Amino acid sequence: MISVVIVGTGNVSQNLFQAFQNLKEATVIQVVGRHKKGLAYFEPYCKVSTDFDSILPSDLYVIAVSDNAIEDVSAKISFVKGLVVHTSGGTPMGILKHNKRNGVFYPLQTFTKGKQLDFKSVPICLEASNEEDLNILLELGQSLSDTVEIVSSKSRSILHLSAVFVNNFTNYLYTIGEEICEQHQLDFNLLKPLVLETAEKLSSLSTKDAQTGPARRGDQKTLHHHLSLLKQQQHREIYKLMSNTIKATYGKKL
Amino acid sequence: MISVVIVGTGNVSQNLFQAFQNLKEATVIQVVGRHKKGLAYFEPYCKVSTDFDSILPSDLYVIAVSDNAIEDVSAKISFVKGLVVHTSGGTPMGILKHNKRNGVFYPLQTFTKGKQLDFKSVPICLEASNEEDLNILLELGQSLSDTVEIVSSKSRSILHLSAVFVNNFTNYLYTIGEEICEQHQLDFNLLKPLVLETAEKLSSLSTKDAQTGPARRGDQKTLHHHLSLLKQQQHREIYKLMSNTIKATYGKKL
Repeated sequence: MISVVIVGTGNVSQNLFQAFQNLKEATVIQVVGRHKKGLAYFEPYCKVSTDFDSILPSDLYVIAVSDNAIEDVSAKISFVKGLVVHTSGGTPMGILKHNKRNGVFYPLQTFTKGKQLDFKSVPICLEASNEEDLNILLELGQSLSDTVEIVSSKSRSILHLSAVFVNNFTNYLYTIGEEICEQHQLDFNLLKPLVLETAEKLSSLSTKDAQTGPARRGDQKTLHHHLSLLKQQQHREIYKLMSNTIKATYGKKL
Repeated sequence: MISVVIVGTGNVSQNLFQAFQNLKEATVIQVVGRHKKGLAYFEPYCKVSTDFDSILPSDLYVIAVSDNAIEDVSAKISFVKGLVVHTSGGTPMGILKHNKRNGVFYPLQTFTKGKQLDFKSVPICLEASNEEDLNILLELGQSLSDTVEIVSSKSRSILHLSAVFVNNFTNYLYTIGEEICEQHQLDFNLLKPLVLETAEKLSSLSTKDAQTGPARRGDQKTLHHHLSLLKQQQHREIYKLMSNTIKATYGKKL
């Protein structure tokens, strides 16, 4: 059983905390955060503190804070003897230079406050500056998830970049779909089964085989009609760029 | 029990056929298609034909062919007495002008050959040129799906436009995510749980609340780093436009 201190109180912290609580291999002994308000969630279950100097001795310290605060936290807990990891996709392990024993524990998923995910299906990307610590992370990762990979900082930043496309940008396309519906007093809920099936399709079909639509088949008439329906300049620009890119990609191959 | 003839042999046709077969309210008596090959799927279960002149008398004719072939099929079966509907999102009902009784039966979903969807969760958008025929479609629709809406041709084209964003463009973002992984010998399967959760999030969160990522938080450092990692011009252009649009949208509100 390893002891864990979590620094940070956001979505990742809450989801990791719950996942660790269900393990016999680990126990969270303390959560440290800047504000009392954020700590209220954890207070019934373990010790909490807003003071980095009162951080407890522990086997593992998990820094689950926003990317730009990681280095600062790392410096503040430079005195701890345990292994210090961050949970960020886009941040190199080297940012934890203040901590002798450091590593990365990156769950490749999007977390929502108040929605506990099944960690078994969350890929965990690991890195550590020495083999002994890597083994600690491997053991912990494998007790949480069915998919645990050792991934370098460089490769992790590529996965994070890919995640920006399939998560952040995709969600923005959903937003546009919703805005178009709202502008015409139509219910976006009608589109939600399609949103879900578009994602689920990937389990049985390659992204290239799943590509359909007017741009894919070079249907100029529909493309022009759609542009005439789009009122917002931003929507038009995204429609044009995405359609032209799809046409260029598949035009060569048709 | 109403009798149905389906024209067309593609994904929509196959999925509708299976859904109708499970109903006591309808029975498919014939499938008509251009090529014998496409008809093989249906042949064990009902009559099939490649000859429009041998189309059977029926209560309902469902034209499930590609958009640009609908008018041609409609003209070829101008002599039938039953109700003729098409299944297209982006095509006005008026294209069925050759048929006295006409309408639209649009299942708002993406269909994959060989993958039978549960039609209960597929929204069906209906339109008909007279009330009696609309009632026939309503009854049939409600026996298939929990979500049946009467939607005008204008509104349907808006839903279809929204579907292009949340389905076609989203799938292309998946393609880019996959290409980025491939270029760096990384396994895109690591991203698939994220793809799924991004879509599932919408059941509990608004698209605006679900927006995260470097552009959302105005993280210039990560945006520049990502651009330096992107090798393909097309990927860079989409990254820039999506990020700038997200920044513009949320910048005002931060």
